[in-house]
Amino acid sequence: MNIPCYLAISGGVGGAKLALGLSKLLAADQLAIVVNTGDDFRHLGLHISPDIDTLVYTLAGQSNPETGWGRRDESWHFMEALAGLGGETWFALGDRDLAMNVARTQRLASGQTLSQVTAALAGSLGIEHPILPMSDDPVHTRVHTGKGLLEFQHYFVRDRCEPVVSGFEFDGAEAAELNPEIEAWLDNPNLAGIILCPSNPFVSIDPVLALPGLRDRLRESAAPVIAVSPVVGGSAIKGPTVKMMQELSIPNTATWVADHYRDFLDGFILDDQDLALKPDIEALGLASHVTRTVMVTLEDRVSLAQACLDLLQTLREELTRRS
Amino acid sequence: MNIPCYLAISGGVGGAKLALGLSKLLAADQLAIVVNTGDDFRHLGLHISPDIDTLVYTLAGQSNPETGWGRRDESWHFMEALAGLGGETWFALGDRDLAMNVARTQRLASGQTLSQVTAALAGSLGIEHPILPMSDDPVHTRVHTGKGLLEFQHYFVRDRCEPVVSGFEFDGAEAAELNPEIEAWLDNPNLAGIILCPSNPFVSIDPVLALPGLRDRLRESAAPVIAVSPVVGGSAIKGPTVKMMQELSIPNTATWVADHYRDFLDGFILDDQDLALKPDIEALGLASHVTRTVMVTLEDRVSLAQACLDLLQTLREELTRRS
Repeated sequence: MNIPCYLAISGGVGGAKLALGLSKLLAADQLAIVVNTGDDFRHLGLHISPDIDTLVYTLAGQSNPETGWGRRDESWHFMEALAGLGGETWFALGDRDLAMNVARTQRLASGQTLSQVTAALAGSLGIEHPILPMSDDPVHTRVHTGKGLLEFQHYFVRDRCEPVVSGFEFDGAEAAELNPEIEAWLDNPNLAGIILCPSNPFVSIDPVLALPGLRDRLRESAAPVIAVSPVVGGSAIKGPTVKMMQELSIPNTATWVADHYRDFLDGFILDDQDLALKPDIEALGLASHVTRTVMVTLEDRVSLAQACLDLLQTLREELTRRS
Repeated sequence: MNIPCYLAISGGVGGAKLALGLSKLLAADQLAIVVNTGDDFRHLGLHISPDIDTLVYTLAGQSNPETGWGRRDESWHFMEALAGLGGETWFALGDRDLAMNVARTQRLASGQTLSQVTAALAGSLGIEHPILPMSDDPVHTRVHTGKGLLEFQHYFVRDRCEPVVSGFEFDGAEAAELNPEIEAWLDNPNLAGIILCPSNPFVSIDPVLALPGLRDRLRESAAPVIAVSPVVGGSAIKGPTVKMMQELSIPNTATWVADHYRDFLDGFILDDQDLALKPDIEALGLASHVTRTVMVTLEDRVSLAQACLDLLQTLREELTRRS
């Protein structure tokens, strides 16, 4: 019997919530999570991978519910001491979180790829589902702003998303190779669906889509591709998505996001609050499903994951009917 | 007026106690502390300098009275998390101590010398007396043992000094350059004395003496050179000095230590418990002074420092009389 398997594409917090829900419904050989590494950066001599760690901590049950990032039960003695030594403290690294960053940096320096390092560290925390960095090659998201071209973390953390955004670039993406494990999942004849998690389209999903060949692979995929809207009732649940849309003079609607992915998308999940947009989504030629997408509890995460799997099944049945 | 100035040569804990005492009696332009870097090593991708940090924490009033190493008020969340990630945990790095090691590693990677880094980090903790790494070039102490040739920290920390010692080497010492700031202090016409702190002769002082030219400089120094015995009543206050002596079939006496430095030494300070050895020291042609050398309180540290300065003054007066 062929086991259907799924690929989720995720940024940090919002995407990780849905990935967690999917991981509760699908076995480790049925789900891999592709993660943005465009906001990885070198800081204090350490290789920091914010989105990988958010996924790892979320899937390991170690995420920090108070901050929304980093590890739970965190302490900050390292940062306090670093401040006392005149070190840079704008990027908060908790004492426990630091272990992840030191271990990753050490393993990378010893010649392991980011994929290997991520698999080893996630495995040591008991995670069985593959978390696949989009590439083992460096890609750096940079943000064009009224204050000039900023490194992503400078824009996002240091400057608290305050500079007005006018565009993005993904330095290194053209020369980067898509993680071969992602290729293998895309080549799997049992691939039953691809899910774009409700992540920021500009700085979480677009860096992944910037990798050579990936967008074409999604367009040509035999398995249906769906996305969950990161915009709900004109707002983003978390992060600067809507602020960016406004600064870019883009309508802050779920419809714009669906259109942004339209070339490869088959279906789109809208929040209940956006029921009125359903005809617009369908006018784009996409199947749509309306449900509660705001994930507060674990049950919410699992319900939304189930809605994704259901929509993908509907799309597969439709494809079968047509062929 | 010419201000007399002094150079102390130190390893870790025992030496740092006397250095602290000296720092209470001498202004920042009167005292520099030369520190062993032979037990520096690279671990978890970090440049770790145990003796520098012991001196820095001691002079900054930040040393940990419970452990005898590391920072006070320390926590261990990083190590706990690292253990959970399958990392190496034999070398304990506290959360606050880690800030020092991360900051040092980052500054070294940016091209600063170890001297520059040490000055900046010590300065940020309010230390005014210069702490001078013996060299900016790498020197690695290795220990010949019954278990083979061991990196110093593997011998000292990982294997808890258990392997039987048969010798030492200071890899890199021949090619290393003595820290130019130490040269400048040695060249200072106001240099009034050099003090070897009560540190392990084999692995704290000998690595410093292994630097090209230093031993000759001490031998030829116009200023008197004295040492404080690290062996008291046949025991070492801390560390493996006497265990090493026994394994090397060396008499575990203060006299042996004085003899070990005899080519450049002018005076030697014995503990009260070793009063009986005074004639042996003098038979070596050295001035001697007997006092309490066991330093429990800050007052003990300052008293011993004063005894060192007094002995150096006696020796200087004697030199003046002779010339």
